[in-house]
Amino acid sequence: MNYNFTTNEEMHAFATRLFPICRSITGEGVRYTLGQIKEKLPNLQLFEVPTGTKVFDWEIPKEWNLSRAYVKDPDGKVILDTDVNNLHILNYSIPYKGMVDLETLKDHLFTLEKYPDAIPYVTSYYKERWGFCMSFSDYQTLKPGNYEVNIESRLEKGSLTYAELYLPGETEEEIFFSTYICHPSMANNELSGPVLVTYLAQWLSQQASRRYSYRFVFVPETIGAITYLSKNYEKLKQNVIAGFNVTCVGDERTYSFLPSRKGDTISDKAIQHVLKHVFPDYKTYSFLQRGSDERQYCHPGIDLPVATLMRSKYGEYPEYHTSKDDLSLITQKGLADSLQAYMYLVELLENNYYYHSTHLCEPQLGKRGLYPTLSNNVYPIDSLRMIDILAYADGNVDLLTLAELTKIPSWEIIPLVNTLLKHNLLTKLDKLTDRES
Amino acid sequence: MNYNFTTNEEMHAFATRLFPICRSITGEGVRYTLGQIKEKLPNLQLFEVPTGTKVFDWEIPKEWNLSRAYVKDPDGKVILDTDVNNLHILNYSIPYKGMVDLETLKDHLFTLEKYPDAIPYVTSYYKERWGFCMSFSDYQTLKPGNYEVNIESRLEKGSLTYAELYLPGETEEEIFFSTYICHPSMANNELSGPVLVTYLAQWLSQQASRRYSYRFVFVPETIGAITYLSKNYEKLKQNVIAGFNVTCVGDERTYSFLPSRKGDTISDKAIQHVLKHVFPDYKTYSFLQRGSDERQYCHPGIDLPVATLMRSKYGEYPEYHTSKDDLSLITQKGLADSLQAYMYLVELLENNYYYHSTHLCEPQLGKRGLYPTLSNNVYPIDSLRMIDILAYADGNVDLLTLAELTKIPSWEIIPLVNTLLKHNLLTKLDKLTDRES
Amino acid sequence: MNYNFTTNEEMHAFATRLFPICRSITGEGVRYTLGQIKEKLPNLQLFEVPTGTKVFDWEIPKEWNLSRAYVKDPDGKVILDTDVNNLHILNYSIPYKGMVDLETLKDHLFTLEKYPDAIPYVTSYYKERWGFCMSFSDYQTLKPGNYEVNIESRLEKGSLTYAELYLPGETEEEIFFSTYICHPSMANNELSGPVLVTYLAQWLSQQASRRYSYRFVFVPETIGAITYLSKNYEKLKQNVIAGFNVTCVGDERTYSFLPSRKGDTISDKAIQHVLKHVFPDYKTYSFLQRGSDERQYCHPGIDLPVATLMRSKYGEYPEYHTSKDDLSLITQKGLADSLQAYMYLVELLENNYYYHSTHLCEPQLGKRGLYPTLSNNVYPIDSLRMIDILAYADGNVDLLTLAELTKIPSWEIIPLVNTLLKHNLLTKLDKLTDRES
Repeated sequence: MNYNFTTNEEMHAFATRLFPICRSITGEGVRYTLGQIKEKLPNLQLFEVPTGTKVFDWEIPKEWNLSRAYVKDPDGKVILDTDVNNLHILNYSIPYKGMVDLETLKDHLFTLEKYPDAIPYVTSYYKERWGFCMSFSDYQTLKPGNYEVNIESRLEKGSLTYAELYLPGETEEEIFFSTYICHPSMANNELSGPVLVTYLAQWLSQQASRRYSYRFVFVPETIGAITYLSKNYEKLKQNVIAGFNVTCVGDERTYSFLPSRKGDTISDKAIQHVLKHVFPDYKTYSFLQRGSDERQYCHPGIDLPVATLMRSKYGEYPEYHTSKDDLSLITQKGLADSLQAYMYLVELLENNYYYHSTHLCEPQLGKRGLYPTLSNNVYPIDSLRMIDILAYADGNVDLLTLAELTKIPSWEIIPLVNTLLKHNLLTKLDKLTDRES
Repeated sequence: MNYNFTTNEEMHAFATRLFPICRSITGEGVRYTLGQIKEKLPNLQLFEVPTGTKVFDWEIPKEWNLSRAYVKDPDGKVILDTDVNNLHILNYSIPYKGMVDLETLKDHLFTLEKYPDAIPYVTSYYKERWGFCMSFSDYQTLKPGNYEVNIESRLEKGSLTYAELYLPGETEEEIFFSTYICHPSMANNELSGPVLVTYLAQWLSQQASRRYSYRFVFVPETIGAITYLSKNYEKLKQNVIAGFNVTCVGDERTYSFLPSRKGDTISDKAIQHVLKHVFPDYKTYSFLQRGSDERQYCHPGIDLPVATLMRSKYGEYPEYHTSKDDLSLITQKGLADSLQAYMYLVELLENNYYYHSTHLCEPQLGKRGLYPTLSNNVYPIDSLRMIDILAYADGNVDLLTLAELTKIPSWEIIPLVNTLLKHNLLTKLDKLTDRES
Repeated sequence: MNYNFTTNEEMHAFATRLFPICRSITGEGVRYTLGQIKEKLPNLQLFEVPTGTKVFDWEIPKEWNLSRAYVKDPDGKVILDTDVNNLHILNYSIPYKGMVDLETLKDHLFTLEKYPDAIPYVTSYYKERWGFCMSFSDYQTLKPGNYEVNIESRLEKGSLTYAELYLPGETEEEIFFSTYICHPSMANNELSGPVLVTYLAQWLSQQASRRYSYRFVFVPETIGAITYLSKNYEKLKQNVIAGFNVTCVGDERTYSFLPSRKGDTISDKAIQHVLKHVFPDYKTYSFLQRGSDERQYCHPGIDLPVATLMRSKYGEYPEYHTSKDDLSLITQKGLADSLQAYMYLVELLENNYYYHSTHLCEPQLGKRGLYPTLSNNVYPIDSLRMIDILAYADGNVDLLTLAELTKIPSWEIIPLVNTLLKHNLLTKLDKLTDRES
């Protein structure tokens, strides 16, 4: 698999293009966003699920669309305007038009005192309310008087939209990626996820062959994942061997690992392997600190092996869920390095066979030009690593375990393993159960 | 189960009443003590096992009773007198009357140099001797001359006495409590144990229903536990799912955990769970540091799941086995908090079912009033905890494991679990094997 | 088994006798060395395997013998001479005779810049070369001009020599020891191994009875172990219950543990137990740091439980593979203490039965004179240890586990266990599967 491509600029540019769209869990913002992604992934399929459809314990809500919302102060000056920043509207706000005094208005205003210059992102999907969000510093300057409120939104029967791309491989066993497209103008959480998944899917769709099948879903968070699962969970439970919920992959501050509920699936182990070598100081969170769609994918009865490799985790960085999570927070390098890490995960899983040394005792590497013929205690690292690989390849260890035992990053062990395969010094088995007894 | 009762004063008062009695492994002191306990536990049954009865590798010794023992110095002054402190007699001392010079007397005196003001507690159950115990500082003032020794004790055929209370529950599976009543005038080790067990049994006997049956035994240490087991071990091995040897529960200095031999029984885990939340700095001892009746209950072939939750452990505090382990060492609060901890253990075990989320994916708690309808990253702790409980309740985890996984104390998770049961968001199973496949 | 013998001087003297011999992986040096060992182990069998024989992926090389090799400088002065130190010759050097200028000569010289006064030990077994080894400080003094080179070696069809001693025991299950005899004049790595194994085998051959059979092999490293395994591995896989590759056992600086590939075999556990009590600060290496014949014995498909107890590990001490690894590096005490440690391993394995307490509850040790009759909190350590042994001897634990659980060194627990066996307080079982259900 080829890693030499330059999407760095392209990924950030794509995020910039999607940034201003007013998304929510339903509505035209989601549809438009998915349409943009489909331009890059022509085989992406869009699905519409009508308002009122039962999905497990939930029901698809009314569809929400916003034309514009603003507030004018007693002097007639527009002080809050979704044309300026679509975070100003309480997401899913009902339409409202009228004059209210300051006290009444304040019941409908949401601020974030601890980060006074940021507009917070607040939603009310399942209870009908109207409201606005604003920075705490602006909030403090509001003066008594009558304010004009105008919310031109529609909350009506419609549908919830999600999209899926399926890339078949040599086997129906599949690797699953999910990301969410419901957040309005925020960058790390969340445009970085859909952008990275788009380019990862593009790269995988260009591969000549794939051992595993791949599935990529773009859903509104929570209700979208629940909707998707209600229609597909049996198939997923049968086929998914590893899965990843992709979110918060755009900044450069750190790497983070959020485990699956079980914590020891191949997804968990692969992430830990890659991060240990890419960024040894990565942060490990507990599944108790989850907060995205792994809540659904790992729920009892669903039990998918879904974990997350992130940069700065949602809820853990100051700009989270505010207007400060903007395009300056995510970088070309941040996105590119995250994509590289996810490509390492894919490559690791694609090569994760069980390996067996073909010779009893060490083979003579020297006669094959793989080991020096002079013994003076100076040996090339690749020779030593090949000896180590052979020493541990007892047919019971997969590539991931072999890489852990020999302390070699997966992307460095794979070429060495391939050399040994070429010299017939290793054999590989698809599964442990295929092993000759 | 109701924890709101005030036995604090009562428990210390009961210990005070029992303190002066001259107990040993047999004799009237034990019988009188058990009679006092029976006043609080009317269904308590007393058993007598005659001298000479074989109990496993042991034999019930002669019964020992003491009227009075004293020593007069060469001036005729009484210097040691069991009417002043019954620790002055070597426990199980044979009768003796006569004049002895200082040198001879010293062969029969026991002191504790490292704690010079304390009278040590010394016994000679299985070899006939006479002797006295005294403080090292008094011992040093003894002057040459002839001493009058008078030990009015009886060592004769009789019987060993123990008592048992059985409270039937919905199942024959039982929770077992043992404590010992052989120590003369000492408080933490040992009156605190029988006093706490008395009030714990009283509380449990007042419950309207009990999932498990409960068994409380009051025995002389070692020989009593061996005697009891020789008559009952097969039944216990069949029924006991958790057990506790209750001792040293009266002071306020620390909490301690002494594991069972296996170390990972439900008793061990329950104690560790409760102590972690009640007193995070509790001390963990090794089974190698055991010293009470867990020696018998956990012995190979007996193998009961018996562990101990203590305050300051026997052998580890300076006053241990001396006259300084008196009523000032144990406190109302010390006893009450220990009782509370044991009640937590009982409540945890009574509720230790296996729980299973009823919905695939998270249920919508908001529509049930269990979760806020406004998303602004401020959520009540109980809502978050309910989500966590549902996320981990996969039918393979019992309450204890669920409490550990979610980091919630058992006494806080139980009401939340009950709320979720009431809303049909959880189901419970008695045992893992009852689970629908 | 009797440990009171004084071989200290004898072992070092034996090493001194073998030191000057010019050994390699084949040739008269090996044969002479094995002949010297056979004088101490008359039943030692020598084997010859002809040049060209296929052994797994390898082939027995030509036999190499050296008469003498020297270099004279432009002034006719002998500057390198194997009669002075046989490390001066590149081991397996082809014969060569001629005049070469300094530049040409330097292509054939090997030095060790980081340890400038030491002659390095270099070999070229599988590629025909000629060469000399010399100290870096001497190398720097070489002046331009023509040098006379004379290497009187023979590289011809012959055979590889190894030796084996087998001591039958009560069972065909065996304990395996391997050491290597291919190194020329070096002391810790390697004469200490063959010397220690010789005396260990001598001691074991003198025992009246042995539970296990014992096998001792003396092979040239790598090719010898591969040759030996190619002829014997099926038998070894069937019979070997524990094995040790003995090397670097002569110095006094530390103790080291190199695990088997699996890391948890009885050999690994026994070494860790012994070292923990003998030298708590011993160094633990990873199997990744292996470098001797465990590479073959633990190779996939061979899978023998072979681990190593060493002093300063090969590759880890400055004198390793140089002329400075001489007889002053190994000491009488170093060798004797290492032998003692290996004897502890043997004794532990010989006594490694499964033990079961015969009594339900603790037996009454006092009536057997094994426990004091007076209870005053001062107990002999052996009494306490016997109680601990009985408490853990549940029939599922072998001696090694029992020693770990009770924290008693194997050589101290064995006499206590024997006392308890004599009093019928313990029974022993050969294997876990022999246990009565």
